[in-house]
Amino acid sequence: MAMKKIFLTEEEMPRKWYNIQADMPTPMQPPLHPQTQKPIGPEDLSAIFPMNLIEQEVSTERWIDIPEEVLEKYFIWRPSPLQRADALEKYLDTPAKIYFKNESVSPAGSHKPNTAIPQVYYNKVSGIKRLTTETGAGQWGCALSLACTLFGLECKIYMVRSSYDQKPYRQLMMKTWGGNCVPSPSPDTAFGRKMLEDDPGCTGSLGIAISEAVEDAISSPNTRYSLGSVLNHVMTHQSIIGLEAQKQMEKVNEYPDVVIGCVGGGSNFAGLSFPYVRDKIFGKEMRIVAVEPTACPTITRGPFAYDYGDTAAMTPLLPMFTLGHGFIPEPIHAGGLRYHGVSPLMSQLVLDGLIESESCNQLQAYEAGLIFARTEGLVCAPETNHAIAAVIEEAKKAREEGKAKTILFNLSGHGLMDLTGYDSFLEGKLTDYSLPESELEKSLEALKAFPKPDILPRK
Amino acid sequence: MAMKKIFLTEEEMPRKWYNIQADMPTPMQPPLHPQTQKPIGPEDLSAIFPMNLIEQEVSTERWIDIPEEVLEKYFIWRPSPLQRADALEKYLDTPAKIYFKNESVSPAGSHKPNTAIPQVYYNKVSGIKRLTTETGAGQWGCALSLACTLFGLECKIYMVRSSYDQKPYRQLMMKTWGGNCVPSPSPDTAFGRKMLEDDPGCTGSLGIAISEAVEDAISSPNTRYSLGSVLNHVMTHQSIIGLEAQKQMEKVNEYPDVVIGCVGGGSNFAGLSFPYVRDKIFGKEMRIVAVEPTACPTITRGPFAYDYGDTAAMTPLLPMFTLGHGFIPEPIHAGGLRYHGVSPLMSQLVLDGLIESESCNQLQAYEAGLIFARTEGLVCAPETNHAIAAVIEEAKKAREEGKAKTILFNLSGHGLMDLTGYDSFLEGKLTDYSLPESELEKSLEALKAFPKPDILPRK
Repeated sequence: MAMKKIFLTEEEMPRKWYNIQADMPTPMQPPLHPQTQKPIGPEDLSAIFPMNLIEQEVSTERWIDIPEEVLEKYFIWRPSPLQRADALEKYLDTPAKIYFKNESVSPAGSHKPNTAIPQVYYNKVSGIKRLTTETGAGQWGCALSLACTLFGLECKIYMVRSSYDQKPYRQLMMKTWGGNCVPSPSPDTAFGRKMLEDDPGCTGSLGIAISEAVEDAISSPNTRYSLGSVLNHVMTHQSIIGLEAQKQMEKVNEYPDVVIGCVGGGSNFAGLSFPYVRDKIFGKEMRIVAVEPTACPTITRGPFAYDYGDTAAMTPLLPMFTLGHGFIPEPIHAGGLRYHGVSPLMSQLVLDGLIESESCNQLQAYEAGLIFARTEGLVCAPETNHAIAAVIEEAKKAREEGKAKTILFNLSGHGLMDLTGYDSFLEGKLTDYSLPESELEKSLEALKAFPKPDILPRK
Repeated sequence: MAMKKIFLTEEEMPRKWYNIQADMPTPMQPPLHPQTQKPIGPEDLSAIFPMNLIEQEVSTERWIDIPEEVLEKYFIWRPSPLQRADALEKYLDTPAKIYFKNESVSPAGSHKPNTAIPQVYYNKVSGIKRLTTETGAGQWGCALSLACTLFGLECKIYMVRSSYDQKPYRQLMMKTWGGNCVPSPSPDTAFGRKMLEDDPGCTGSLGIAISEAVEDAISSPNTRYSLGSVLNHVMTHQSIIGLEAQKQMEKVNEYPDVVIGCVGGGSNFAGLSFPYVRDKIFGKEMRIVAVEPTACPTITRGPFAYDYGDTAAMTPLLPMFTLGHGFIPEPIHAGGLRYHGVSPLMSQLVLDGLIESESCNQLQAYEAGLIFARTEGLVCAPETNHAIAAVIEEAKKAREEGKAKTILFNLSGHGLMDLTGYDSFLEGKLTDYSLPESELEKSLEALKAFPKPDILPRK
């Protein structure tokens, strides 16, 4: 019997994160100050982040030591298993081999604690006592609450009100770990109060919640802000996924022909793929595919431009693929993929031709997720289902071409808190929504006011 | 840094289950026919179980081969990790070492698939196309739905209506795996229709749901019934937990002084402990502790007697500790511990002085669960929290006595579908309910009509 799961021991787990900034073929363009629109320096970020994380954000060191205290917490669930989806292969009657990295085994159910834990650790050693953040579907809020309880920090989470109401279990999970989760917009910040004054029934958005969390961090003692995606240091922390996967694939003498992940802000995708992107930069041939929803097609249809990370325009302007910071995506179940922008690092690697992108709609995603649940047994998050849809397409192509290729994807999280989405799919209540061109154009209007980034693609 | 998790490779996983019937110091007493009250033979069970499982039920073979097809499915998540709760030890400032077997990593979130998968497999090779079962909190219904989809059988689950309404995510999970879950009492069976006629608002009970599932199995073509606890073959399948744990403990040169598990019907407890009970039978000194809720104190306060497994008196009479088959426990959150009886094998081992029992109330259980969640990061099922309460007591005792002992417990499932219980606890809405003596006496009245089992304890 072929091995179904490949474990690493704790001793075999990598002791350093990989920072792709050391190997980028094109240098990154600087973030710009939200008001002056001039490049910002580390000190401009110090009101919201501790200096040790800001240093990681701009670092070009290739390898960054994982502190012992972080390793200790990682070991609660890491190294995560690499698994073979042989039952899915059989179901698809494909010559392709399908492997996945199972990040759903963390206590919070997704890859998010990979960065929550070091972020809380670095804040703690900087003397910070309290963190604020926003959360959409709730995966990130749960991960930060978990990390805060493990290190003894307070945690305040602004959760988009529509999600807060739809997913009561998510905020109960944060509460169980001692996190204080409030629906956003909230009366706890000036920006929240203003939003509620304008519209008492406002159901919120990620952009609004970020603005609240940032305001809280700036105006409260011993408090900083924490972000679960998009930024460089987040991508670096997540690299543990791909570094482990490379060791595990080696154990079964495999190397992927295609690496696949879903993309919202980019953190799970970068986590698995950046160590492989490095191999590709140094000559290895493979495809690296980012999958996004047709309802929020940031890379596949958005321009590469400078844009804000939030609605209230409080964050720096970042060079990235974007749909415009005022964009409010359809309420698809994959809440983690409903973000207008994407990691600047990923954006640059797309421009450089190292990462390709495609999109699928919600029906395709759930159909794939259901096939996976009924063959492999694992019920995946709606975000992950987008990756699985692409995997199934690749495996079918392999069958048609009679080619035995090796596919690796990231199972970024389980779907146990999102079962209503499966129900809606089974009851025929979901649509194959795709963002209309007219709406996209309208949303991109605002970008015209910002400086244009240089585009210096390698290819 | 000491190891936090001890893995086994798939190759190292045991290939045989352990059947404690081979080593029992006192022979088991036979089940009795529900009507004649005479000992039953295998053929009496063939309307509800396939013959290969009936053979396992009565087998006294010590080791039973795990079929290759079952191993393949086990490998989706097994071998499960053995973990060290060092953060909890630190929090408790105890010299005790605390280890736990993490059974929450299965796709259904508990130990239940360990028996669901072989049960479905043995039915499948017997030509059965469809299985029926009951479920209380929903853990078992989910596990059987999972196993049925993996082997391509149909699955019908009768779920106690009060749980069906309280825990909507559980039935969505079954539906995602293709299971057909209906609230019980249901209009789908004669017994269900009768109950609904008598009381259209009836919220159901496990006993009623078992009666419905058994009736359905007997009256439908190619259909059998499946039970997730209590019976001997279930305990045998679960022994994989303890067999793995023994190999893992050996890897770190540890042997437990105390083995702890929570008890409803007994399956997760037996799974971890029976391989250790065997060592104890052969002279090893250790304590093996079963923990039950004060709301349903079957072993701690019930008599050892012949009783039915269900409300409608359709099952054989089993020799076991029982609170009376008409007993309806308080609706505590630990739905998996709300059963009037307990495994006959476990019952006999309690009589033989090999297993001891204690109880804790719901407040103690959730307090323990919250400490665990905030130190170790894992949110456990309310059932598991009962075991953790006992572990914490043992660890405190070790501190007081200044003794470095090794404690091993079974983390039988995660609590992600039961977060409302944590919320109720945090909001001060739970009580320390304990079954009043008068209610117990009333419930035990019915037992007087049945034959008395012999009591032949070793000690």
